[in-house]
Amino acid sequence: MHQKYIFSNIIGTFIFNEHINLLDKKSFKNIEQKQKIEKEFEKKYKNLVKPEGKELEKTLSFFKNKEFFNDFHKNNLELTKIAIKESVKDDILIIQAINNIQEIDKSVNILIKRLREWYALNNPEFEYLVENQEKFIELILKKQTKKEKDSMGADLSKEDLEPIMSLAKQVDGLFQLRKEQEIYLNKMMEKTCPNLLAIAGSTIGAKLIEQSGSLKNLMEFPASTIQLLGAEKALFRHMKTGARTPKYGFLHEHPLISQNPRNLHGKIARTLADKISLAVKVDYFKGKFIGDKLLKQVEDKFSKKDTIIKQGI
Amino acid sequence: MHQKYIFSNIIGTFIFNEHINLLDKKSFKNIEQKQKIEKEFEKKYKNLVKPEGKELEKTLSFFKNKEFFNDFHKNNLELTKIAIKESVKDDILIIQAINNIQEIDKSVNILIKRLREWYALNNPEFEYLVENQEKFIELILKKQTKKEKDSMGADLSKEDLEPIMSLAKQVDGLFQLRKEQEIYLNKMMEKTCPNLLAIAGSTIGAKLIEQSGSLKNLMEFPASTIQLLGAEKALFRHMKTGARTPKYGFLHEHPLISQNPRNLHGKIARTLADKISLAVKVDYFKGKFIGDKLLKQVEDKFSKKDTIIKQGI
Repeated sequence: MHQKYIFSNIIGTFIFNEHINLLDKKSFKNIEQKQKIEKEFEKKYKNLVKPEGKELEKTLSFFKNKEFFNDFHKNNLELTKIAIKESVKDDILIIQAINNIQEIDKSVNILIKRLREWYALNNPEFEYLVENQEKFIELILKKQTKKEKDSMGADLSKEDLEPIMSLAKQVDGLFQLRKEQEIYLNKMMEKTCPNLLAIAGSTIGAKLIEQSGSLKNLMEFPASTIQLLGAEKALFRHMKTGARTPKYGFLHEHPLISQNPRNLHGKIARTLADKISLAVKVDYFKGKFIGDKLLKQVEDKFSKKDTIIKQGI
Repeated sequence: MHQKYIFSNIIGTFIFNEHINLLDKKSFKNIEQKQKIEKEFEKKYKNLVKPEGKELEKTLSFFKNKEFFNDFHKNNLELTKIAIKESVKDDILIIQAINNIQEIDKSVNILIKRLREWYALNNPEFEYLVENQEKFIELILKKQTKKEKDSMGADLSKEDLEPIMSLAKQVDGLFQLRKEQEIYLNKMMEKTCPNLLAIAGSTIGAKLIEQSGSLKNLMEFPASTIQLLGAEKALFRHMKTGARTPKYGFLHEHPLISQNPRNLHGKIARTLADKISLAVKVDYFKGKFIGDKLLKQVEDKFSKKDTIIKQGI
């Protein structure tokens, strides 16, 4: 009995005789059918082998025929669509969410500056008194803004105050939206990278993912890169002009760093980056939750900070 | 009978004898009492005159006494407060409104870019199809976004779609706010500068006021300055590098300019600036409404544009 060959590509499975003439074929409607169809053929023909060497060459040139081009094109498109569809993973949603939070912040800052300037025409003393932005909006919306008798503010008519109030309402809406999105971000990170969340917090963690492009990229970075993510500008300045090296990027905002004395910042950032690098690896390979332990290790190390300083270590 | 003198300043009205010794005085609680108090004194003392020359000098040095300092300080503050209070005129509210509209636009642009990117993960075909921003938001909020069967978009869970929807809601809110503020701006301009509104429209008119600082400043500008308001950058580039002079600034957006052929733009801008300068003067001195006539003059002049081009004028 002559040897028969089986060959599958994205358009279907094909059976050839020893001269690589087509004996049988079955087109895929869907690439997932492949295994099933191959098994069927193996039952039917027995002793099928995959073409190698010279036979493989002949098989491949067989598919150079124009009649297959259309199928190749169609199925390739199909596969790409599926690949694109599946490329949206949770870390992309995390990146969208953190980007969104940052853009909302930008918008809120623009609009609240405007609101304050506008409102100050009416009641400058109150505008000056309340520094907290959210409190400011809240009091305006609740109309708990006492206007002093000898206020320097103009007496605006109700008509003139209305657009100011609608602006305040919108800014408040943006504040609420920001809170919602923070909750969503937290939820996503709990699901995708609980260890990173535990040690870095949602904002820093998400920024790290965003800057590196994906959780996978972040996982592949060494700790020293993670330490400097977000400090690109300072790093290039250092490389160009010989200015001092940056000690940290996004990690700068970490409470462990901001709450400790300045001379420890660099050391803490290095340790943190180390643990974060570990946490991300565990997250990426869906390991156990060890985030709390990692964080505690860093905390313990630097709670003895007084001794460290004294010993000059 | 010896001459008696009457003298008023911001703290009160004073009566002096011929040697500029104080005979009588009455302090103001409020500067508006001045006329009333002066009349009372004139009835009481008859033949009062205001000090002049040597007497005025003596009177003024009388007030150098420290006992008056406190009153001067207090009343001066009072007057300044009133001046500040009254400085908020309608044109300042117009400036606030146009600034606000521009900042809302900025925020909307930031957030809608974000929304589109985020939404495209779910339904890229639809995101690509609908170019109009407001339509895009409207359809998303009404959930009239057909997702094709072979869409490349990922199948996001309801949980993942929720924050996208809240973002869309907020952007829609900002769109509504912008509309409200435009109505308010229009109303304010109808009240304050109907002629400017009629000839330049609310956006260009408000921008002109904003750039010049007040309606009064705009009124004092020559037409040639008005023509170039908003083109400062191009003007300074011209002065520095000898690049071509700008033909118009904010006027660029005027429908009469954008709807006419390019070679007429400069001429139309000049005529428009001329009429606007006129309109603003009428507005500032609360004259009659002539805005429609002014606009018609410009329109008539350039509706014969074809003849003008042919004649090469």
